[in-house]
Amino acid sequence: MNVALVGVTGYSGMILYQLLQQHPEVAAIRLFGHPDSQTQPLEEAVPNFIGDQTPIEPLDPAVILADCNLIFFATSAGVTTELAAPFIAADFPVIDLSGDYRLQDPQVFTKWYHKPAPAVSALQQSHYGLAEFANAAGHSYIANPGCYATATLLGLAPLVQQHLIAPDSIIVDAKSGTSGAGKKLATSTHFSQTNENLQLYKVNQHQHIPEIMQQLKVWDQNVPAIQFTTTLLPITRGIMSTIYAKTDANAEQLAGAFAATYAALPFVRVLPNGQMPNLKEVVGTNFCDLGVSYNPATQTVMVVSVIDNLIKGAAGQALQNFNQYFGFAATDGLQLATWLP
Amino acid sequence: MNVALVGVTGYSGMILYQLLQQHPEVAAIRLFGHPDSQTQPLEEAVPNFIGDQTPIEPLDPAVILADCNLIFFATSAGVTTELAAPFIAADFPVIDLSGDYRLQDPQVFTKWYHKPAPAVSALQQSHYGLAEFANAAGHSYIANPGCYATATLLGLAPLVQQHLIAPDSIIVDAKSGTSGAGKKLATSTHFSQTNENLQLYKVNQHQHIPEIMQQLKVWDQNVPAIQFTTTLLPITRGIMSTIYAKTDANAEQLAGAFAATYAALPFVRVLPNGQMPNLKEVVGTNFCDLGVSYNPATQTVMVVSVIDNLIKGAAGQALQNFNQYFGFAATDGLQLATWLP
Amino acid sequence: MNVALVGVTGYSGMILYQLLQQHPEVAAIRLFGHPDSQTQPLEEAVPNFIGDQTPIEPLDPAVILADCNLIFFATSAGVTTELAAPFIAADFPVIDLSGDYRLQDPQVFTKWYHKPAPAVSALQQSHYGLAEFANAAGHSYIANPGCYATATLLGLAPLVQQHLIAPDSIIVDAKSGTSGAGKKLATSTHFSQTNENLQLYKVNQHQHIPEIMQQLKVWDQNVPAIQFTTTLLPITRGIMSTIYAKTDANAEQLAGAFAATYAALPFVRVLPNGQMPNLKEVVGTNFCDLGVSYNPATQTVMVVSVIDNLIKGAAGQALQNFNQYFGFAATDGLQLATWLP
Amino acid sequence: MNVALVGVTGYSGMILYQLLQQHPEVAAIRLFGHPDSQTQPLEEAVPNFIGDQTPIEPLDPAVILADCNLIFFATSAGVTTELAAPFIAADFPVIDLSGDYRLQDPQVFTKWYHKPAPAVSALQQSHYGLAEFANAAGHSYIANPGCYATATLLGLAPLVQQHLIAPDSIIVDAKSGTSGAGKKLATSTHFSQTNENLQLYKVNQHQHIPEIMQQLKVWDQNVPAIQFTTTLLPITRGIMSTIYAKTDANAEQLAGAFAATYAALPFVRVLPNGQMPNLKEVVGTNFCDLGVSYNPATQTVMVVSVIDNLIKGAAGQALQNFNQYFGFAATDGLQLATWLP
Repeated sequence: MNVALVGVTGYSGMILYQLLQQHPEVAAIRLFGHPDSQTQPLEEAVPNFIGDQTPIEPLDPAVILADCNLIFFATSAGVTTELAAPFIAADFPVIDLSGDYRLQDPQVFTKWYHKPAPAVSALQQSHYGLAEFANAAGHSYIANPGCYATATLLGLAPLVQQHLIAPDSIIVDAKSGTSGAGKKLATSTHFSQTNENLQLYKVNQHQHIPEIMQQLKVWDQNVPAIQFTTTLLPITRGIMSTIYAKTDANAEQLAGAFAATYAALPFVRVLPNGQMPNLKEVVGTNFCDLGVSYNPATQTVMVVSVIDNLIKGAAGQALQNFNQYFGFAATDGLQLATWLP
Repeated sequence: MNVALVGVTGYSGMILYQLLQQHPEVAAIRLFGHPDSQTQPLEEAVPNFIGDQTPIEPLDPAVILADCNLIFFATSAGVTTELAAPFIAADFPVIDLSGDYRLQDPQVFTKWYHKPAPAVSALQQSHYGLAEFANAAGHSYIANPGCYATATLLGLAPLVQQHLIAPDSIIVDAKSGTSGAGKKLATSTHFSQTNENLQLYKVNQHQHIPEIMQQLKVWDQNVPAIQFTTTLLPITRGIMSTIYAKTDANAEQLAGAFAATYAALPFVRVLPNGQMPNLKEVVGTNFCDLGVSYNPATQTVMVVSVIDNLIKGAAGQALQNFNQYFGFAATDGLQLATWLP
Repeated sequence: MNVALVGVTGYSGMILYQLLQQHPEVAAIRLFGHPDSQTQPLEEAVPNFIGDQTPIEPLDPAVILADCNLIFFATSAGVTTELAAPFIAADFPVIDLSGDYRLQDPQVFTKWYHKPAPAVSALQQSHYGLAEFANAAGHSYIANPGCYATATLLGLAPLVQQHLIAPDSIIVDAKSGTSGAGKKLATSTHFSQTNENLQLYKVNQHQHIPEIMQQLKVWDQNVPAIQFTTTLLPITRGIMSTIYAKTDANAEQLAGAFAATYAALPFVRVLPNGQMPNLKEVVGTNFCDLGVSYNPATQTVMVVSVIDNLIKGAAGQALQNFNQYFGFAATDGLQLATWLP
Repeated sequence: MNVALVGVTGYSGMILYQLLQQHPEVAAIRLFGHPDSQTQPLEEAVPNFIGDQTPIEPLDPAVILADCNLIFFATSAGVTTELAAPFIAADFPVIDLSGDYRLQDPQVFTKWYHKPAPAVSALQQSHYGLAEFANAAGHSYIANPGCYATATLLGLAPLVQQHLIAPDSIIVDAKSGTSGAGKKLATSTHFSQTNENLQLYKVNQHQHIPEIMQQLKVWDQNVPAIQFTTTLLPITRGIMSTIYAKTDANAEQLAGAFAATYAALPFVRVLPNGQMPNLKEVVGTNFCDLGVSYNPATQTVMVVSVIDNLIKGAAGQALQNFNQYFGFAATDGLQLATWLP
């Protein structure tokens, strides 16, 4: 299998490149930058790839359509829209790690992304690749979910699918490391500002909210809205979504729902007996660990969902979609050791 | 004013000692340890107090009753109960930073602290010194609130006092640095475990929950329970309580309630326009910063409350109570510069 | 005493402003920005000064010469040169925290700072305010030393002054937190880059090297050069200079030299018995802690010198010079509690 | 290949187990604890191995001698001495990650480890497996080097082997993350103590000094001693050894020596043009990155050597020795992606 990758210089692209190098079914990886860029060896563009002379070539759709089997876009918001057209036109397989094609409704896109939406036809043919609950086989345009959306939806799925919670009571207190904000310099991710600090950002305005809502409504049309808070942590990797909702179910019913939903899925681990996951245990891996706790005093269920934002929340899930698309084993390229300690 | 301090070797005691040294009305500070301990110079017991030869003497109530005007207990849970009796008997002023006398109901104490409660008469004479909403003048036994309780109650006060929220909808997602757990070694605070991690602990079992409930019920008897989660952060100092509740009020009413409640209080700063506080801005100070955000999509109010757990959440609030008890100015000894950056 | 401060928006300026607010001899602090700037309240320019409406006015020398007793420049390299002329012309007291006037030789300045030097006459009248070894009284232009220079010179002083080491054997392995690099965004201080990392920078090219050499040559003309390495730490505050040199002296002679040099100086603490200082014990204070260890196997003395880079290495030492200039007590405004834990 | 592993619950053992799981020539891994321990599933002993039921059995040499091809000891100091005798007696292959058999001279062992040495015959048959400069083939007892020793020796090898430096001028300023200190709780690795701090420890007394000296003397008998400092960093993973020595060689000669020494070795990367390595670029990998800088002003060469202490400094190098012993490819099981960001 020959694959093309656009955007290796960003954090998600770096990780995706490394994972593809270890994937048993990938023969060659070609790297591409913007069509206007100059060819540059990888180690010059990203100094930590010491000794890797793979060229990053200017994007040339004709070459890719001829020589590759699939293209990954690990590009910033808006860039895929600009570059993907020839691949969409050719019905060539694309896995898009950006948010450009996740939302089916162009008005919702414009409201949350503050820019014009891609063409409606393209949006509506796009497959939202939440890998545990969708199958990318047969879909040539795969929109890989956002990192917050992945952690949150995996935590909410059993509750919403099985109507175990009051649909208007969902509160998500999500926390993320700084790598989610990428390489771009900003005051909020300046070390002296981030370190020993907690900072809230995009309160009720994070662009992952609409893709969460879009998917929740597929599962239960009655979910009206969610409360969704994002807090920047003084760590580099990882997301924790702490989810609260009112429930009439008891602890056993809740545990049963999670167990049944995820028993056969290799990358979601439901912890036993109300035990809570530590963020660090999933960093470096494609796992999503879930802890479920019921509080009879408040009739509230709390779900804690942790992922590595750049693996399960980006490059790893992209490989899950890649495996689904080509019919490879679900865990191909994704048997990753944790980084502990 | 001559004061006695028991427990200078713990984190709260260290800070309290430093604050007392700068207090304009404190003439002398005498340090005490357990009655069975040997006299030891401070710099030997706590090496960072380089050059400070102040003796830590074995506790001798007779000396203190004769020579001091007030005693602070910055001791671990259970120790105050063991040591405070002669001071209670003499109606001598005590400010107790431990949790021993915060709960009026001995059964509640035993349930949450897993040990026998102090005498009922002592519990019921104890004054819960939440300094913004109580006045320690005239109360000889002052129970200084817990750190989580302080951050949470200051964030909830306007909402509960003015009945602006559904009383059964309160969810508190609280996060703390490691200094809240003190000097005692534990796996959860081993650097290799804490660093780059988030760990939940004491889910729905934290011993600050009952003192929060006790105070909320004073403000509104209809609050049945709260959902309260504690997450250990990879930072040393500071607490953030992120509070959610359903409300019928709108943004203006909420902002008005906070403004009115705290306008005249020097240590609570309500940020304007839904702006959210950064944790780091209060570390090193006695401030509690509050951000208030209303989400019309979910009819939910979010309040973010940040404090320095060892100052506003312990030693600083103890000084507020000290100032109230003796009628000193509220800000005496507490005009502290932030540590930024 | 009325003082003017230019550059309150930078880290050193922020700290200096806070220290001046607590200084017993300072009646008023006026804040100034660039002459071309607009007047702005402090809390708008630096949001963490919540509620402080002190105006930052465009710099107006005439006003300052008329109304103030001294001006502090906490400005970036090059800015003081641009702005200080009227004060130098009037022989008005200046304490300059930038590096512009620290080097007496304009050629050395140009070599290390890569820009034209200030006027020779001004350079040569400038007083290098290493507070433990100079007295600012009578000097109207006081160049406050650099942070690395302060830690390193205090560690080397007894050894070089008393000719206890081989003058060509000095190696300094210095480490700094990120606040030394200021507020300016840069890849090396992006949180995802700095965190869990060590980065060397400006190898043998750091601009504090020439001021260290200039001072060492005052003490011993035979020191030909020093090896000086700077490593960026994943912490915000503090510098550790680890200093090595070959010596013929033994442990007792070395200990004696340090004890004699610093016995009467309030801000330098020599630890006993080869004990080594922890960086954290000085952060938040104006102390420089020194540990001295002699290794007979290598005939090498190691000195470990730690300071808070923004206090002892900038704003605190500026206050020492301020106190010297006006004849105030050495510790006025500088009795600061450590931040431990 | 069936391998036995004693000590999977420690940090090095955890990593070694994960690496062995991915090694292409390893068919089965059997886990063992102390002979007196009870059989326990791995996930109970080390909770982050969620779902791994592999039993940790009490050590039974007879079983291992019969069923396994090699045994790894990832045990604490002293434990291998206690347990390895039957394997030594049987000339069965052992790779020992502890320090018990690294020193050939029992008196040196006792001086630095403060305990009785293993039998002289065993010490002298032990192979010091510094993988870049030794070949484990044919040696049944392989003592895997210490983490500090690995980083330091790889940085010094070209200089000492080729007599490019003054042999009495070597100074090593080494820094380590906390994982090097293992899981054991200690004040120096308590989060509130380690975080935002630098702490020196075991000044001139670190037990890796004698193994460094033993190897340096193999390369150049004239090296009399080294100055060796260890500083504990507020990070979890990684070591940086910053090495200084006086030299008569110039920059080109030094660069040439490093290039020639390491050109053919896959795990040592010499950075070009005096460029310095960042610690983070090797964490998660088996690489040792080296930067070399010559300062003509001081005639000093500085070498900066960075490794992941638990991989190249422990489990990864153990796999290099494993590969050498059985004649597998040098990089088998060691093609690891960096953790950046």
